Amino acid sequence: MIRAAILGATGYTARELLHLLLRHPEVEITALTTRQETRPSVAEIHPSLRGRLDLVLENLTPTEVASRADCVFGCLPHAASAAAVSELLAAGCRVVDFSADYRLNDPKIYAQWYKVEHPDPARMPKTPYGLPELFRESIRGANLVANPGCYPTAAILALAPLLEAGVVSPRGIVIDSKSGVSGAGRTPKPAFHFPECNENLAAYAVGQHRHTPEIDQVLGTYADVETNVVFTPHLIPMDRGILTTAYSDPVEEVDADAVLGVLRKKYQDEPFVRVIDELPNTKNVSGTNFCEVTARVVQGKVVTISVIDNLIKGASGAAVQNFNLMYDLPETTALL
Amino acid sequence: MIRAAILGATGYTARELLHLLLRHPEVEITALTTRQETRPSVAEIHPSLRGRLDLVLENLTPTEVASRADCVFGCLPHAASAAAVSELLAAGCRVVDFSADYRLNDPKIYAQWYKVEHPDPARMPKTPYGLPELFRESIRGANLVANPGCYPTAAILALAPLLEAGVVSPRGIVIDSKSGVSGAGRTPKPAFHFPECNENLAAYAVGQHRHTPEIDQVLGTYADVETNVVFTPHLIPMDRGILTTAYSDPVEEVDADAVLGVLRKKYQDEPFVRVIDELPNTKNVSGTNFCEVTARVVQGKVVTISVIDNLIKGASGAAVQNFNLMYDLPETTALL
Amino acid sequence: MIRAAILGATGYTARELLHLLLRHPEVEITALTTRQETRPSVAEIHPSLRGRLDLVLENLTPTEVASRADCVFGCLPHAASAAAVSELLAAGCRVVDFSADYRLNDPKIYAQWYKVEHPDPARMPKTPYGLPELFRESIRGANLVANPGCYPTAAILALAPLLEAGVVSPRGIVIDSKSGVSGAGRTPKPAFHFPECNENLAAYAVGQHRHTPEIDQVLGTYADVETNVVFTPHLIPMDRGILTTAYSDPVEEVDADAVLGVLRKKYQDEPFVRVIDELPNTKNVSGTNFCEVTARVVQGKVVTISVIDNLIKGASGAAVQNFNLMYDLPETTALL
Amino acid sequence: MIRAAILGATGYTARELLHLLLRHPEVEITALTTRQETRPSVAEIHPSLRGRLDLVLENLTPTEVASRADCVFGCLPHAASAAAVSELLAAGCRVVDFSADYRLNDPKIYAQWYKVEHPDPARMPKTPYGLPELFRESIRGANLVANPGCYPTAAILALAPLLEAGVVSPRGIVIDSKSGVSGAGRTPKPAFHFPECNENLAAYAVGQHRHTPEIDQVLGTYADVETNVVFTPHLIPMDRGILTTAYSDPVEEVDADAVLGVLRKKYQDEPFVRVIDELPNTKNVSGTNFCEVTARVVQGKVVTISVIDNLIKGASGAAVQNFNLMYDLPETTALL
Repeated sequence: MIRAAILGATGYTARELLHLLLRHPEVEITALTTRQETRPSVAEIHPSLRGRLDLVLENLTPTEVASRADCVFGCLPHAASAAAVSELLAAGCRVVDFSADYRLNDPKIYAQWYKVEHPDPARMPKTPYGLPELFRESIRGANLVANPGCYPTAAILALAPLLEAGVVSPRGIVIDSKSGVSGAGRTPKPAFHFPECNENLAAYAVGQHRHTPEIDQVLGTYADVETNVVFTPHLIPMDRGILTTAYSDPVEEVDADAVLGVLRKKYQDEPFVRVIDELPNTKNVSGTNFCEVTARVVQGKVVTISVIDNLIKGASGAAVQNFNLMYDLPETTALL
Repeated sequence: MIRAAILGATGYTARELLHLLLRHPEVEITALTTRQETRPSVAEIHPSLRGRLDLVLENLTPTEVASRADCVFGCLPHAASAAAVSELLAAGCRVVDFSADYRLNDPKIYAQWYKVEHPDPARMPKTPYGLPELFRESIRGANLVANPGCYPTAAILALAPLLEAGVVSPRGIVIDSKSGVSGAGRTPKPAFHFPECNENLAAYAVGQHRHTPEIDQVLGTYADVETNVVFTPHLIPMDRGILTTAYSDPVEEVDADAVLGVLRKKYQDEPFVRVIDELPNTKNVSGTNFCEVTARVVQGKVVTISVIDNLIKGASGAAVQNFNLMYDLPETTALL
Repeated sequence: MIRAAILGATGYTARELLHLLLRHPEVEITALTTRQETRPSVAEIHPSLRGRLDLVLENLTPTEVASRADCVFGCLPHAASAAAVSELLAAGCRVVDFSADYRLNDPKIYAQWYKVEHPDPARMPKTPYGLPELFRESIRGANLVANPGCYPTAAILALAPLLEAGVVSPRGIVIDSKSGVSGAGRTPKPAFHFPECNENLAAYAVGQHRHTPEIDQVLGTYADVETNVVFTPHLIPMDRGILTTAYSDPVEEVDADAVLGVLRKKYQDEPFVRVIDELPNTKNVSGTNFCEVTARVVQGKVVTISVIDNLIKGASGAAVQNFNLMYDLPETTALL
Repeated sequence: MIRAAILGATGYTARELLHLLLRHPEVEITALTTRQETRPSVAEIHPSLRGRLDLVLENLTPTEVASRADCVFGCLPHAASAAAVSELLAAGCRVVDFSADYRLNDPKIYAQWYKVEHPDPARMPKTPYGLPELFRESIRGANLVANPGCYPTAAILALAPLLEAGVVSPRGIVIDSKSGVSGAGRTPKPAFHFPECNENLAAYAVGQHRHTPEIDQVLGTYADVETNVVFTPHLIPMDRGILTTAYSDPVEEVDADAVLGVLRKKYQDEPFVRVIDELPNTKNVSGTNFCEVTARVVQGKVVTISVIDNLIKGASGAAVQNFNLMYDLPETTALL
């Protein structure tokens, strides 16, 4: 059994991860951390897990965590996460990091978007980006994997193959994303107060969302030039799900079948990406680790539409998929 | 024109009240208060009113408010409200008080449920309870009216006529109420965080909700003996609306038609109560000052079902209806 | 491997059942039926199962089904179901019947509520009611089990132990239930059109819901006399979940701890019932086979509050739990 | 008093129109039509209007309607509408047509998108498009006005001024729109069944929505060349509201302030368009006739975001605004 710990286990992604790990035949959950000193039980923090897991959340140092766990899932805020990750790796743990700390390769871009110097810059370019569909071989056996952001997952899975195949231009890409509210985390704020966001619809952080450089970094790799996407996230009155509508210009005239063909070829052996003819919706992938994607050509523009569950394929499911690869377990374990 | 002010103008009931008062041909809104010192504009606090009302919210004393307004709508918390009301009345204002401070007649019961001594106990039994359908004559021309709670409005309108007519017993009444989340106010809290209360359903404050003594006081008046209702509120994942299902025992065997007959007779001339044969739903009264009510007899029990919009008939609409009566204006002004 | 078939596999309960059975290590899904002649694929009918199950839905006779399956899950409408069940049993299949056909023992009560003569009345009183917490021994090894209704499951689990222990009176029980809309099935109707039931709340079928006799039958068994419950279902604007607030009169004065004690004793070894001190909510059991229940005493009345996922513990999860018992498999298989 | 009739008065737009017209001091509602022969009352069809309007819906010919009404609001399906409109105009009525029949100028484009020959092509190019902010003078005093589509209203109000001012290019405009479900009408269909579209999010009719030519026609007028917009509508799990995020390329480098300046100048005297610095949301305009719009520049692209209530500014409110202009009444009558 692989002993697993979760750092910062009070949020929604930790809760989803716990539900998944409880189904994982190779995992024993041995430590959960929080900054609270009251040692709350799992049932107090996540009542949906009452009776499922008899553990308390503790304020543990990385060293203490390392003494109890082989693999650590880090759900800490950025910067705090990198500090803990360094210690955990030094102590011999493997880590799946949910924070943004090791997603970007360039400390300068990190500092620009996250307004803080990266505490462990040398490790940034060496850490694999945990999107198995694109970076499986570098994830396999790794000691540290940077779990991707939810928006980047949906956007990159739709666009990277088209850039890689040279079907669409890297210039002028528009990514219009819509997300359920669980993506905003568990801390109550006016914008997420039920009577404010129920029956409501808004764009937010237009042109300023921190997932932007992450998308550009990966798409740039596939395009071989900088992309500079226009990224607009929207808040949708539902719990979970992301739908991303991306608009790009074909390099040469193309039809929907050709675009779908490129996507199908790329993902034909993928266990968790379904390229479909129909227009996808978020409900069909809700609670699952699947991404569904389709494409259309409208007035000469390539329109791709991709959906994921932001808490599963966009966070905790991807983490388990990465974990399975890191330990050379069947990739779908605990995910079907 | 009657100059109107709102104390504590940042919440949902104040916003609804502003929308109604802007349609009132006899009202000029002249002052809005807040404890914030930043003098925010109406548009900053209530963006839905952008361009409709050019006022700032100010931290004003009751004396300052009295110098600008003839009638004051008080949306302050309990106890704080009574303190302000005394001063306003002394300065010659009329007041519609949204707080619970003048709803109860008995300072001891108030202290027991609100955990504070009432600052103005003498005025409690003299203040009319602002449910025009039952207390119209005492409201007409009054200087102070206690605007009812939202749950009591829906429950009392269904049950008081049946107790008055001696159709149902005052013993063993069960009031099972369901409310949209706007009833919980505008302050973000974990229980009202969108991902917590969306797609969720819960009872709360079972047997302990502060609207209980208010219901018992009014029903007791109509029953001529104490009632002691069992009151169970539930939180429903929607913005607005209350549906109350009440269960009572008939004094003698009765059928639904007889019960409906009693309700129809009581409310035949009421502009805002519709006694209907069909089962009511909250959407049909949403955004309006109407209450709809019906009755059934099941296994010998009388089942009444009543619906209101908690922010209108359950708060701001009732306040305007009371205001109209206080100033002897047509009762439906600004409410249709 | 046990070969499993589903009759009437187009609805929500069938979809949930498929998701559960795909996780069941002892089950192979071998046949799915529909009255449609077009042989639609699983993916066409249930897009959430794209790529998970390569079967078509066929218009098969019971004999054809029996040749392919050992155990059949029947999701047919009442009356149609009994006709098929007789044939399947005769052909050697075991059956879990989701319809109401074998829940009631008395053909007369069935005819009164379902407005049709029962086609197989002799089998009615011999068929175990598939609530393992109360009827486990009769379910174990059975060839036919009547899967309970969703409302009865939530109501009975809360009330039966209190009647069995003689804590509450069988007279005057009020069951006020609230359900998400998936309980209404998959057929579009005006009442379930999104803009009609979103942001809305209504009671329906007051005193006339067909789950009433089922509740009375089981509660009557535990009370040793007839109960005649007042049952009021309500439609809540959410997908899934039932919360039932039941009101009963104690035989002798009682407090909440005593009531909770009775429930705890009854369910102490149950894998899927959690007796809790807190007020439960539907979200904590959503997507699971758990029932959570608590109790309060208010103004002398016993108030119990119980929650389930109507599609899992109220339908497909219960069916798998029954299946596990029928085949003497660990009861929680595929359900955690 | 102007006698008003509504053709096809059973849908959501008719219901909203009735609520608005009941507040209009110059209007008397005299006739409502339906194809049903049962003469249902307003209360049966629109229970929210119980007690507000004592009329039945009748199956009337245009001639019969014309004998009772001065102005007719047509809520009929396309093609059926044009047939009725011709007769009504001939009989001396004025008409506000909610259908698409007189929005387009070119019968060929109409036939291409609506798959039917237009029955009254000569009148098409002469009928003003009922967006007062752009076509006020041609609406004033008109006998027939084509009420705009909901999506075009939100899109055109954001983009037309930028094209008119030469700020953005007419080429490559992307319009990504999100709408609440009431826009789909009142007829139950699988896609709008509550458990299907609640907690769900999808694009639909990608590149094929019939509002596309209407948007291109008006934008083309302002651009002086054809636009060929890429229009993608999405279905959002809420009742009402449209948010449109539009992406266009500036002709010369531009910043957000300059874009906002163009919008402010265009709409400075408009009673129902609010150009704001903040990101708008649909809830702030819900239930109102307001459009809010803002602009940003991201990676060199102009991003505009506009919101309306699809049933008010996108349908019935616009109709009343047009009516007011047609009869030379104050434009905001019944709309504030």
